[in-house]
Amino acid sequence: MAENKTEENVVFIGKKPTMNYVIAVVTQFNNGAKSVVLKARGKAIKKAVDVEEVVRNRFLNNLNINYIVALSTEKIKTDDGKESNVSSIEITLKR
Amino acid sequence: MAENKTEENVVFIGKKPTMNYVIAVVTQFNNGAKSVVLKARGKAIKKAVDVEEVVRNRFLNNLNINYIVALSTEKIKTDDGKESNVSSIEITLKR
Repeated sequence: MAENKTEENVVFIGKKPTMNYVIAVVTQFNNGAKSVVLKARGKAIKKAVDVEEVVRNRFLNNLNINYIVALSTEKIKTDDGKESNVSSIEITLKR
Repeated sequence: MAENKTEENVVFIGKKPTMNYVIAVVTQFNNGAKSVVLKARGKAIKKAVDVEEVVRNRFLNNLNINYIVALSTEKIKTDDGKESNVSSIEITLKR
């Protein structure tokens, strides 16, 4: 069942500094995770790419980590009740 | 040689409105391109994803367009002569 658990490592990228998320991802891998998924939408998309690049090239460059990117659109409700489309990204990091 | 030419359709995503780039991409496909590559770095990464989503889901949803995403880091020189790392994205759209 440990295998199952490691499939669920999701890090939601939001407004915190990039390094916070980098540390979160590195910690997951150091704890034995086989894969970590970064999820972000809107303005946080850039930060998700930054996190992926820093993790893969600077912190875990010895682990040969691969990535797969999925792009999609989410509908979110704005404060005035209207629906708005927001692009989102899902970066799966696998060792 | 026409085949070769269509491989080189690159759209650089910058500071113009999203729709400008959407129209540029749609025009390329309408002119017979088999693939179009979106390139962006830094803050424009979000816009590149927006362009991809709008093109694929709203304008050319009948073409069954696939996408491949490559992420990388570029070194750029800042005004004061220092080197800085900037994340970049390359989204290849293929029909």
